[in-house]
Amino acid sequence: MTEIPFIPIGTIRSPYDRPEGMPIQVVGAAGIKGSVEVDPAYAEGLADIGGFSHLILLYHFHRARAASLTVVPFLDTLPHSIFTTRAPARPNPIGLSVVRLLSVAGCTLEIEGVDVLDGTPLLDIKPYVPAFDVHAVDKIGWFAGKVGAVVRTRADDRFSNPD
Amino acid sequence: MTEIPFIPIGTIRSPYDRPEGMPIQVVGAAGIKGSVEVDPAYAEGLADIGGFSHLILLYHFHRARAASLTVVPFLDTLPHSIFTTRAPARPNPIGLSVVRLLSVAGCTLEIEGVDVLDGTPLLDIKPYVPAFDVHAVDKIGWFAGKVGAVVRTRADDRFSNPD
Repeated sequence: MTEIPFIPIGTIRSPYDRPEGMPIQVVGAAGIKGSVEVDPAYAEGLADIGGFSHLILLYHFHRARAASLTVVPFLDTLPHSIFTTRAPARPNPIGLSVVRLLSVAGCTLEIEGVDVLDGTPLLDIKPYVPAFDVHAVDKIGWFAGKVGAVVRTRADDRFSNPD
Repeated sequence: MTEIPFIPIGTIRSPYDRPEGMPIQVVGAAGIKGSVEVDPAYAEGLADIGGFSHLILLYHFHRARAASLTVVPFLDTLPHSIFTTRAPARPNPIGLSVVRLLSVAGCTLEIEGVDVLDGTPLLDIKPYVPAFDVHAVDKIGWFAGKVGAVVRTRADDRFSNPD
């Protein structure tokens, strides 16, 4: 199939320059602050964004290893299929995090809940709107009984390329 | 900045072959069924996905017009900055929908809550996990007072290229 080219529109800054010890989801990153530096070419697209408390960030897992269709995720000791996990080593390595927006200064967004590597290329920012984004689920597959550990679970280098 | 190439991993099938009359969010698409046809090359990555009731689909807004940094979204009559909207005409036209998974047969996922065009290229499937994806927000910007209309609001062609 034909490639679809996307372009970085900015960079995510975080305290983590390597995966080891990084939170694996925003829910494990309470109090972890960082920023989103949007390319000034897109400044107009940020107007009034300060009116939102939460933003969806889509980004490139730029340090991810080549895709694996079966992985052992951080939250389990058993293998699972890639599309039932949030692991970075995906066929299209696109990450998704919902972060709290603390403040806006020009094209820099100060954020809290940072579970990404420093220097991560930003692809998109969308407003998080509970009416669109909150869903009542019946089944969460293998995460049942595992998900509580996300708050304390930290990453390692299993999905990342070496430096 | 350097282009990041992604590849379609499948195709989303829906009842909508043009934007006019299409739901603008999954919450407006109750009962609207469609399917996700994943390329058989990724079959292994779907194992046990039937254990999840809700999936996050990331896809290419393949019919989107060139990006506009300010748009008049479907839910308002006033202009808003693109990163405060979910409009398709974004710098990186990546769409996000959380759909209900009804059944799985081979590489075809039958889904409900379809707010995308037929033939939409699929980029990623992630499990929707409330512990990761449900956030209590304080502020939803311009959506305040507008969001209730999403259930009955339908799209038009303002963000799409002609056939």
